[in-house]
Amino acid sequence: MTITATSAQERMTRAKEASRSVGLLDDGAKARALNAIADALDAATADVVAANADDLARGRDSGLSEGLLDRLRLDDARVHALASAVRDVALLPDPVGRVLDERTLANGVSLQKVSVPFGVVGSIYEARPNVTVDIAALALRSGNAVVLRGGTAAQSSNAALVAVMRAALESVGVDPEAIQTVDDFGRDGANALMQARGLVDVLVPRGSAQLIETVVTQSSVPVIETGAGVVHIVLDASAPLEWAEQIVVNAKAQRPSVCNAVETVLVVRDAADRLIPPVAAALESAGVTIHGDEAVRALVAGAAPATDDDWATEHMSLDLSMRVVDDLDEALAHIRRYSTHHTESIVTADEENAERFLAEVDSAVVMANASTRFTDGGEFGFGAEVGISTQKLHARGPMGLPELTSTKWLARGAGQIRA
Amino acid sequence: MTITATSAQERMTRAKEASRSVGLLDDGAKARALNAIADALDAATADVVAANADDLARGRDSGLSEGLLDRLRLDDARVHALASAVRDVALLPDPVGRVLDERTLANGVSLQKVSVPFGVVGSIYEARPNVTVDIAALALRSGNAVVLRGGTAAQSSNAALVAVMRAALESVGVDPEAIQTVDDFGRDGANALMQARGLVDVLVPRGSAQLIETVVTQSSVPVIETGAGVVHIVLDASAPLEWAEQIVVNAKAQRPSVCNAVETVLVVRDAADRLIPPVAAALESAGVTIHGDEAVRALVAGAAPATDDDWATEHMSLDLSMRVVDDLDEALAHIRRYSTHHTESIVTADEENAERFLAEVDSAVVMANASTRFTDGGEFGFGAEVGISTQKLHARGPMGLPELTSTKWLARGAGQIRA
Repeated sequence: MTITATSAQERMTRAKEASRSVGLLDDGAKARALNAIADALDAATADVVAANADDLARGRDSGLSEGLLDRLRLDDARVHALASAVRDVALLPDPVGRVLDERTLANGVSLQKVSVPFGVVGSIYEARPNVTVDIAALALRSGNAVVLRGGTAAQSSNAALVAVMRAALESVGVDPEAIQTVDDFGRDGANALMQARGLVDVLVPRGSAQLIETVVTQSSVPVIETGAGVVHIVLDASAPLEWAEQIVVNAKAQRPSVCNAVETVLVVRDAADRLIPPVAAALESAGVTIHGDEAVRALVAGAAPATDDDWATEHMSLDLSMRVVDDLDEALAHIRRYSTHHTESIVTADEENAERFLAEVDSAVVMANASTRFTDGGEFGFGAEVGISTQKLHARGPMGLPELTSTKWLARGAGQIRA
Repeated sequence: MTITATSAQERMTRAKEASRSVGLLDDGAKARALNAIADALDAATADVVAANADDLARGRDSGLSEGLLDRLRLDDARVHALASAVRDVALLPDPVGRVLDERTLANGVSLQKVSVPFGVVGSIYEARPNVTVDIAALALRSGNAVVLRGGTAAQSSNAALVAVMRAALESVGVDPEAIQTVDDFGRDGANALMQARGLVDVLVPRGSAQLIETVVTQSSVPVIETGAGVVHIVLDASAPLEWAEQIVVNAKAQRPSVCNAVETVLVVRDAADRLIPPVAAALESAGVTIHGDEAVRALVAGAAPATDDDWATEHMSLDLSMRVVDDLDEALAHIRRYSTHHTESIVTADEENAERFLAEVDSAVVMANASTRFTDGGEFGFGAEVGISTQKLHARGPMGLPELTSTKWLARGAGQIRA
């Protein structure tokens, strides 16, 4: 359904109005709306792919890298995969209406704390047009309207996807104004979203560390920070070689471009001679370039020298920083200094050290003897992932549908007054 | 214990460092620290009252009203009451270390979501020096360090209270740097707090609507908005007169200066003739001035005319706005327009209308047939109240100690990697 509202303000106002009816939809109605969206995406595949071709042509003209062009690309298979993901979201349990607390006051007033939709969820994101459908589906499943601001590179694709989703909502009697985009207002659209206190209830940025930093510092709308991962693994003095090897290689090489991939390995000095040569060899076999401090380079011929910048860098590539630390204290101090509070793991056979690490590290997910790649909504069994929160307010770590809800207290009385 | 750190930045850094050890204190150690603070406050009553006398003298010189001087005043009884409130906080259950979710992945990795302290809680507040002790005690009970920025008017009192609390912490072996003030840096102190991302984990403003608005819009540290209450009561067509009368009078007159006091009563037209005259009479007996629309004034001789501003005003006095609406729809529309999303209540004998009101009103607390004065941490049985959140992120409504904690996920494995 075509967007007729001509200003960002008006579109956000319509989203707010639509959020009232969408917030009251029951489980079945929300699932039907999502399935209608999925069917509509399948049916409109050719249109979406054609719109995407415009974005790809513009991208090529403006010199986008092959990697970015691939992130931008939608073909038949990818559109069908998107539709299929929406059907999966439709199957998830309704996060609205859960009773989270219940109490009856001495005077007989009954209190219930129930989960309710936020109202309007805003999202500012980059590059991949699939986020457009992903966020809209998750917002709708949790009874929210959504205002989207995607990457300029994907503007035609996003417009096509939004039009398909709005038409699908209308076809099942759901207010299509519940899905809005402000892509066409460029930077003004993003600014409008960030200043829309009272219209937008929460803003979820997804993308580069720089994008997230901008949104977090400039938005007066409450933000859920999802984020960059300078992720650490500590190899403790007692770390079993087999675990150290497989966890470090898995955490770095299985998918190096994601936020839960490890960036820095800290090896406790007592274990350096025993662990570093075989772990480094395994990493090098997996194509990893090690950036090592002096002690590491003394043991790994092929290691590049680590710079101060390396410790703070989310490589997002087959590069890994590695440092020898005197003991667990020094490892914890390094993590305090450089961690982005996403995920850290220790490999150790010493239960006391494991528990100390779990207690003292201040990150969303803290692990002992497991790969950092497990920090993921899907792996955690959430069925869907809104993002991975690296802040401490509201949600921390992988966010599922319940993290797209707020709460309210309901009080039912019979004329009670306060004494 | 004297503060030696000379810049706001350095004090916040020390608070962050102290938060590591304070966050690991067990229940008993935190309770002991709070009882030490209470004892120290009792012992130092004369010093605190003397410091307060300086503030009062300055206040008188600068022409503070009697009301504000009274809010500022600390005498022996008030200091003892403060100490006693700290002992009550010591008795509350430890909100840290609760296991909020638990799951074991198919591969055997065990996951636990546990409550953890935020780290450093900042607070910007006004006038009353008792907030200094109140917030510090609540923060400490939940394992947090605290950085305080109180009102300039209470600067000497706050400095004395902070010194007493820091000395008490030191006397029981708790890092005194866990309690900091930046009062002496004036506006720069507040700005430093609002920009202290990475040092301060959450900021809780307490005070006027204007103070809260400033913090919410200027802070890059996540804020929990506590807030102003333009609170509504709807008298539905079927409202029993007795309930209408007692709830409206209680909600307005029992304590008019607080955020859960009612500001606007909306009367459904069918009940206007039946309810307005007796309810208005009861209000007038309680000393309330009614600001009414035309329909109200036709029924209440003594009513002042309501202006457009009245509907958006938190009177905080024995003034009440009153309007006749056509039906529940118009009442809900009025509330959408003017509510600050704090508390609203409906008085009705019609269960369907009650449930519709509970479902549709988008406020922290929504009531049927009860006084809005029940929106309070103490009344809800929380044992302590950090504030009443009017935002939707993290906490909504009365906040107890658990709302001063975040969470983290702990993962315990035996070498598992992601397939």
